[in-house]
Amino acid sequence: MKDFIIKGCFLDSESPEKLRIVEAGYLPVVGGVCRGIFPVIPEQFQPLPVTDCGDKLILPGMSDLHVHAPQFAFRGLGMDMELLDWLNSYTFPEEAKYSDPAYAEKAYAGFVDSLVHSTTTRAAIFATVHPAATLGLMAQLEQSGLRSYVGKVNMDRNCPDTVREPDAKTAVRETERWICDAGSRFHHTKPILTPRFIPTCSDALMAGLKDLQRKYSLPVQSHLSENFGEIAWVRELSPASGCYGEAYQRFGLFGGDHPCIMAHCVHSTDRELELIRQNGVFIAHSPESNMNLASGVAPVSRYLELGLNVGLATDVAGGSSLSLLRAMMHAIQASKLRWRLLDDSIRPLSLEQAFYLATVGGGAFFGKVGRFAEGYDFDAVVLDDSSLFHPQPLDPRSRLERAVYLADDRHIAAKYVAGKKIF
Amino acid sequence: MKDFIIKGCFLDSESPEKLRIVEAGYLPVVGGVCRGIFPVIPEQFQPLPVTDCGDKLILPGMSDLHVHAPQFAFRGLGMDMELLDWLNSYTFPEEAKYSDPAYAEKAYAGFVDSLVHSTTTRAAIFATVHPAATLGLMAQLEQSGLRSYVGKVNMDRNCPDTVREPDAKTAVRETERWICDAGSRFHHTKPILTPRFIPTCSDALMAGLKDLQRKYSLPVQSHLSENFGEIAWVRELSPASGCYGEAYQRFGLFGGDHPCIMAHCVHSTDRELELIRQNGVFIAHSPESNMNLASGVAPVSRYLELGLNVGLATDVAGGSSLSLLRAMMHAIQASKLRWRLLDDSIRPLSLEQAFYLATVGGGAFFGKVGRFAEGYDFDAVVLDDSSLFHPQPLDPRSRLERAVYLADDRHIAAKYVAGKKIF
Repeated sequence: MKDFIIKGCFLDSESPEKLRIVEAGYLPVVGGVCRGIFPVIPEQFQPLPVTDCGDKLILPGMSDLHVHAPQFAFRGLGMDMELLDWLNSYTFPEEAKYSDPAYAEKAYAGFVDSLVHSTTTRAAIFATVHPAATLGLMAQLEQSGLRSYVGKVNMDRNCPDTVREPDAKTAVRETERWICDAGSRFHHTKPILTPRFIPTCSDALMAGLKDLQRKYSLPVQSHLSENFGEIAWVRELSPASGCYGEAYQRFGLFGGDHPCIMAHCVHSTDRELELIRQNGVFIAHSPESNMNLASGVAPVSRYLELGLNVGLATDVAGGSSLSLLRAMMHAIQASKLRWRLLDDSIRPLSLEQAFYLATVGGGAFFGKVGRFAEGYDFDAVVLDDSSLFHPQPLDPRSRLERAVYLADDRHIAAKYVAGKKIF
Repeated sequence: MKDFIIKGCFLDSESPEKLRIVEAGYLPVVGGVCRGIFPVIPEQFQPLPVTDCGDKLILPGMSDLHVHAPQFAFRGLGMDMELLDWLNSYTFPEEAKYSDPAYAEKAYAGFVDSLVHSTTTRAAIFATVHPAATLGLMAQLEQSGLRSYVGKVNMDRNCPDTVREPDAKTAVRETERWICDAGSRFHHTKPILTPRFIPTCSDALMAGLKDLQRKYSLPVQSHLSENFGEIAWVRELSPASGCYGEAYQRFGLFGGDHPCIMAHCVHSTDRELELIRQNGVFIAHSPESNMNLASGVAPVSRYLELGLNVGLATDVAGGSSLSLLRAMMHAIQASKLRWRLLDDSIRPLSLEQAFYLATVGGGAFFGKVGRFAEGYDFDAVVLDDSSLFHPQPLDPRSRLERAVYLADDRHIAAKYVAGKKIF
């Protein structure tokens, strides 16, 4: 990896409420890591080559905390059902196709290509129950230069035979083999334990996954409190749990000793939020998906006030697009309707907050990611918004806001992950 | 204008609930008008040249019932306020710049170019109070091949001097001169009376506009029941009116004898809806704008059930984009949150309903527009969605749904307005 200096107009988050904007700054990248932003090149970095991005915007790479790779194939389709019917009608039939590695390779190529050309540099990804297809996806991701966690999904009940693992023991054995295969093959594409959600995972399976977590020290990702029907079902399946989160907690799969991402948390109770806080669980806020499946709107600005770990997610194919810029737009819009229609004591998200979620909020799951502060991995997106017509100059904050609503893959001029230019 | 036959996969609305899909159909266009869709070319049309669109989707041109051309310059910006503050902070200062015809020409060029490359073929457009700039906009629109109504805005109170007409008499005189100038210069770009909204229009101005309507037989467009603060203000200004709509009605500027578009109708009372129904007023549903300005969500599926005239609108720059595909997405998403958060007795919009609003619903304001039925103007968008990755074939309805969420100007291969190919 080569060291270099990148010059341009930098934007990152100082806090959820405040942007930092540095115009015409010089950022030395040494060993893939940011060494600060300077108005002139400090002497010690003078020998490094300079990449001049002119007045293009340089944003931190964004982290997608929850996305289903196999669902990319039907993104933008089947938006006429709520969660449980949608899973049975669209999701499970599509995921069943990934038993065929040739289909999986073709479909995952589309996903990875689209992810590469988005603002995303890091992602926590659901695959399917199929180990071979999941390893294939991981190979493509590793090749892409992105950094990610990928989960072979576990399900051993309450789903069609085509996507159900035969029993808990087999599921755990195959998952362990997949973990070992992945660990030996990939550096930047790491396995994450992925019980789909409580309804599809038996107690024996959950206990087996906890054993794997202890043995291999792996993070976990799953779904939480997305939809009323789902929550009621979990209450039936796990009557001793005081909240949905406790149904994971009783197996030790709810953060605490190992990192954990829970997608959605639209309807989390105070008790559940307290457990999330205590255990440092990351909430993957998925605003477009929560609209499309009519789940509702998570009170995200409250979660920020409570100091919870919250990041942003596209949740394709509940969400239609892999764009985290678009997810920022949806997060802001959904929060405004929540404020207007449901509860005006919880303020809508600001641009600053949505940007924080997409960069720092989710980035924290991956280490020192999501800022240009010294010591952070240099993940960056170079945004060329010159083709977005405007009759007069705009300041950097305005350019960022406009990008949230209007930019797409055409406007991404370059992307860096941990100091490496991936295009 | 040349007659021709166009071949491809046609989609249009049979009703708000039902799509019509004709694959590999032949549609003869004679004098700019559809002559039906046939599985083979009828003998009488055999001499006509055939344009073969392969398996591209051919959709009716869409109608944007409410859009502010001068606000295109700040689309995607300033999304952090409600309506009245937003008008004062962003909108009026920008609109004031259109007193400079050179600025107007440059800014309007961006608007018209973007509109041409959208799915919109017809639009009802607000300009500013400035006659010269408005005529310049109309000249650009006429040149583009689009068909539209354009309104020189009227305001003579409750707004900054920079955008206020000096008094009602001058406003009416300048408006009349503009009407005559426009009428003599343009065929497909027609003037529409445009009192901005009740708060900015004195009684004398409204009465004068009614006189112009009688004299020149013009339609009218304005705003209605968008935001609680606005509605309360109208109640103060027009205490005798039983609803906001009656504040227009008492001047005869609320449909009935002349066509009328009212944007928003988010918070219309039953009394107002009955007046809308009786007078055949067109509701311009502006879902993204109503999210961005935190206004709320109009109960559109109820309006369809009531048999009201409803079309779709981008309302740039309350909305960020001129794309009516995206407006369909936002309409569906907003309706789902309304159902979930506010009132589950009003069903979310289906894809079919949103498509109907964008094509037939708004098209009806412009004549026989928005369908491929015999006798309708041939307004069409040829959609090439082949670059939207999918690992397997999709049926036409699925392709339409996916386009709503994912297509942009790159996917529009050609566009026709009243039989003329504009690109």
